[in-house]
Order: sequence, then structure tokens, then C-alpha cells
Amino acid sequence: MTCTFTGLSGFPLTPLKDESVDEAAFAGLVERSAAAGVDSITALGSTGSYAYLTPAERACVANLAVEHAGDTPVLVGVGALRTSHVLTNAEAAQAAGAAGLLLAPMSYQPLTDHDVFELYRAVTVATDLPVIVYDNPGTTHFEFTHELYARIAELPGIASIKIPGVPADPEAAREHVGAIRAVIPEHVTIGVSGDASAATGLNAGCEAWCSVIGGTLPEPALAITRAAQEGRAADAFAESERLAPLWDLFTKFGGSLRVVAAIAEQLALAPRGCLPLPIQPLSDDQRARISGVLDSLVLN
Amino acid sequence: MTCTFTGLSGFPLTPLKDESVDEAAFAGLVERSAAAGVDSITALGSTGSYAYLTPAERACVANLAVEHAGDTPVLVGVGALRTSHVLTNAEAAQAAGAAGLLLAPMSYQPLTDHDVFELYRAVTVATDLPVIVYDNPGTTHFEFTHELYARIAELPGIASIKIPGVPADPEAAREHVGAIRAVIPEHVTIGVSGDASAATGLNAGCEAWCSVIGGTLPEPALAITRAAQEGRAADAFAESERLAPLWDLFTKFGGSLRVVAAIAEQLALAPRGCLPLPIQPLSDDQRARISGVLDSLVLN
Repeated sequence: MTCTFTGLSGFPLTPLKDESVDEAAFAGLVERSAAAGVDSITALGSTGSYAYLTPAERACVANLAVEHAGDTPVLVGVGALRTSHVLTNAEAAQAAGAAGLLLAPMSYQPLTDHDVFELYRAVTVATDLPVIVYDNPGTTHFEFTHELYARIAELPGIASIKIPGVPADPEAAREHVGAIRAVIPEHVTIGVSGDASAATGLNAGCEAWCSVIGGTLPEPALAITRAAQEGRAADAFAESERLAPLWDLFTKFGGSLRVVAAIAEQLALAPRGCLPLPIQPLSDDQRARISGVLDSLVLN
Repeated sequence: MTCTFTGLSGFPLTPLKDESVDEAAFAGLVERSAAAGVDSITALGSTGSYAYLTPAERACVANLAVEHAGDTPVLVGVGALRTSHVLTNAEAAQAAGAAGLLLAPMSYQPLTDHDVFELYRAVTVATDLPVIVYDNPGTTHFEFTHELYARIAELPGIASIKIPGVPADPEAAREHVGAIRAVIPEHVTIGVSGDASAATGLNAGCEAWCSVIGGTLPEPALAITRAAQEGRAADAFAESERLAPLWDLFTKFGGSLRVVAAIAEQLALAPRGCLPLPIQPLSDDQRARISGVLDSLVLN
């Protein structure tokens, strides 16, 4: 992979079984996304439960992802609360054959802009791999400013910035993405996350989609991505609208992770109860609702 | 220790030196608090950087704390993002000779009340030690309701609930503490944290103070605690007011941890730059301000 990070990146779950990584299930998810034709696979994103896994589990998952992705480039999430642990994860990811690193500024004590800039500096100094800035305030509780995006994006090795969901209004989304684009170098791409707003983000100029469903249900994610890439904005939006019942479940059932885990379990892609505790599985009632939505969207 | 958790608990830093625990500096902080006469020492609280340390480092710190605390009971923070890791930490703390466990619901993915209740249930089932509920939303990003306090407090083995800072107004603080007291069993004590509001919290009926300065500057913390315990509410409040310039620094310089680390460094109780990266040390200007405050308060 060059330093250009674009298109659809599928974020597979890291399914657990009896507190250990279910290696076969994980390999299956990676193969499924690669076979569908995603542009990259990001192992150990938030969807991949990176924050909950030991360094040894993470190295194992990075290796499995590269082994099973074929020619599809694999990005690996290396975030950790402590900088030295991030560097260890980065080394393991590089050894596994990762094409790039995804790094979120995980926090326990609230972080300053200075802390976060120095974190990215330390990692870009330590690795030759392209680094994707992972802005996910719902989990990291760190709020990037555009000024900080700009400072970090100028570090050599920064390839992309993954931003949280964009405004729902297309014009507002375009202004939002344009304002970020205006302050970062041209070679640094912008990736959108928040699956419900991905079509709007891609239509507004984001070059990549870091996709939760892309790791479990890659086809509809590809339909949205290819439409947006080919300038068929209305088609991208229509496919996303078709999936609105799914996005609604993300909101109602405590976030995309719990819902996508339940979907993977339902489709026998992961064992029942595949998320790390303390994250409790959804209830039988909630699973029935999910099942109904999958049926109605013909996603099963 | 019985299941009654009361009085002053000093929270020592876990100073690092070149990315490893500075065992001598940590032992010195524990001995200093024990010699001053604190009622307990809580190793591996937020002030002790528990969230940043490996399981092996945490086991080492728990052992050192018990070794150097003499007759003073030692509580050990066992929080982790994953329940199985919490249980491992709890086992290590019990093996080290801890008198109780402190547990915060650390989060990466947002947690539900059901997740958090089941976390506490799992830990109380797995250990014979008293467990202190550690409500610290500024770091965990989980918000307890009084209803959840009540449900968790009824689990066998729950000894105390450590609440965040209380309202500044004494009457509002009394109502706040009373409302919690009304929904939890009598044997479960309430501990206040947030050093600036500790005098108000103790005067309002909190039975314990989980104290950041108690781990580094135990004397003024003891003066406040003993005054409140002896019914000298005005004296407790006056001593806290005297320390207002210190509380102001906590607010101005990004929280108590960075300031207390700088104080410990200044007093040669910890090596320079003792916090885990990415947490950057305070600047020389900030350190000069802290030094001035220490001089004016005769805390050096």
C-alpha cells in the first residue's frame, strides 16, 4: 500500500469465545470482507475491541488478519492508554505485515493537545508505516480541534484522519469536510466513520469510510462507497436510506458494536456472546428485533 | 481491616522512572503516609496511575504497598477495561495482602447500568475482600445513578462508595450525601473524593476521604479529616480554605494528578517526569507557580 488511504475499510469484530480470541471466526470475517472486495481491512479498530485485548492477543489478531486478507491491505489499530504500549503494539503490527496503523488517543486522565500531539509524534518517529489519526470522541473522550488536526497532519507519516460522523445536512457536511480539508496537506486523506452518516460524508468529499458494517456486511457498504466514488451521490444516499432501520438499531441498542456483534452471531459468523465483558450481549428481544430488520433488508 | 472503610485514605502516586515503576520512590510515599497516621493507603488509585500499568507492574506495586505500609491497611485499585482482567488484578491484590479492593468501571465502549452491575457482581462473587465502588466520571465516563448505587450496595462484600466531589454549598452537600445515604445499607460507608470539596463532604456526613494529597502531603489532609471527625466542622473548612491556592492549581493545571506529581518531584519524593506518557509533565513556569504556593502554605 502507498500512503494513500481511500475507499472502504472494513472493520471486523474480534470475536471472543470463553474469553479467548476465536481465531477461526476472526479469520472468517477477514476473508469475507476481502472476498467482497473492500479496499482495506482494519483489524483491531474499536469494532475489533482493541482496547480490551492483551498485547499478545493483539499481535495474534494482527498476524491472522494479514494471513487471511490475501492481497487486501491490512491496517492495524495500535492505540493504548500508555505511549510505550502503543509503540509495542506498533512494532508487533509492523512485524505482522500491516500496511498502516490506526491510532486513537485513548484516555483515562483527560489529555491535553500537547499530550496528543506528542503521542502522534512519538509513533510517527518510531515507525515507517503510514499512520491514520483516529478521532473517536465517543470512546476516547478527547476532542480534536481543527488546529490540532493541522499540526498532527504535518507530521511525516500521517496518511489520513478518520473523523467522527458528519452533519446530516449535505451542505453542512460539505462545509465541515471542506473546513478540515483546508487546514491539512493534500496527501492526507479524510475518512468518515459513523456508518449512518457515511454516504453523506463520502458525498461531501471524504475519501474513505472506516466502516463497522464493512467488516461484517461488506456488500451494502461497498454499494454505498462505489456509488459515492463514481459520482452517483443520489445512489449512495438511497442505499444508506434503505439501511435506515439498521442505523436506528445502532442508536436504540447502545451503539453499533453491540448490534453488529449480534448480527455476526445471528449469521453464525461469531459465537454467541462474542464481546468482551463487561459489555453484556443484547437481550433476546433485541436480537429478535435485529433479526426482523436483517430479514426485511435481505441482509441475512 | 473489617468491612468498615472510614477516615483518611492516602492515594500515593506510582512514580515511574524510565518507563518502569520507581520502587524506592513508591515505597517512600507509602511509608510517608503511614508514618503520618492516615487510616488507610489506597495503592493504584487514579492517582497511582493504575490504568496505565501492566498486570505485572500492578502486582509489584500492590506487594510493595503492603510491605511498606506497616500496620496501615492497604486498599488496591483493580479496575481494568475487561472484566477478566479485573478478576486477575483482584487475585493479585488479595495475594499481596490487600485489605480491600477499589473498583472503578473503566470504559472504552460506553457502558450500561446492566454492564456495570454485572461487573461488580462478578468481582464480589470472586473475592472475599471488601470492595469499594469508585465513582469517578471524569476518568471513567460512566455516570452512576442513585438507583444503581443502591443495587450495587446491596451486593454482599460492597463496603463503601467513593463519590465524586460534593456541591460547594454545605446545605446542598448535606442533602446530596443524605440522598445517597438514604438508598444504601447502613454498613456501606460513603467516601468523598475531589480534594477541594473534601472538607465540605466530610462535614456533610461522608465517612471517608479518598485523598490525592493524602498520598503525598498527608499532614494537611489529616488536619481536615480529624477536625471533621471530631465535629469541628469550622476547623475542617478553615484548613481547606487555607489550601485554596493548591485547589486552584488543580483546576488551572489540568487536574490534581499532574500537580501532585509535580509537588512530589519538587519535594524529591519522585523522579522528574514521573507520570506515564502520554501525560506530559507540567512546564517550568507551572512548576515555579506550584513552588510558590508550596512555600506560601509552608507545605515544603
